[in-house]
Amino acid sequence: MDSRQIVGKNVRKLRVERGFSQEQLAFETGLHRTYVSGVERGVRNPTLLVIDRLAKTLKVAPYELLMPE
Amino acid sequence: MDSRQIVGKNVRKLRVERGFSQEQLAFETGLHRTYVSGVERGVRNPTLLVIDRLAKTLKVAPYELLMPE
Repeated sequence: MDSRQIVGKNVRKLRVERGFSQEQLAFETGLHRTYVSGVERGVRNPTLLVIDRLAKTLKVAPYELLMPE
Repeated sequence: MDSRQIVGKNVRKLRVERGFSQEQLAFETGLHRTYVSGVERGVRNPTLLVIDRLAKTLKVAPYELLMPE
């Protein structure tokens, strides 16, 4: 499992915990809904600046998105 | 300070601790020396796959590269 899969699982888990839909998370982070979907599935390869935006919306530190369970 | 600066400081610190030059780290990770230099200065915006490669060479978990001091 590489960081794309780890981030994907963490983003999905946190998004659901926050009660966001993929559309809401995409809107809040300024990303496209299909891009957020790809991040959650681990098929996108986001940059650090995208990680920062997702972490800010999900109210965690960026490194927490890369932490395996 | 965003994740680019945090990663840059951590990569530089770990590289020096491991006794690598920028050239050696670049060679080991398959990146260009000027790219590694840009990552260390926080002016590049690496993707998760680049973070994984740097972390592997530096023998840390990828999330550790994003941890502030």
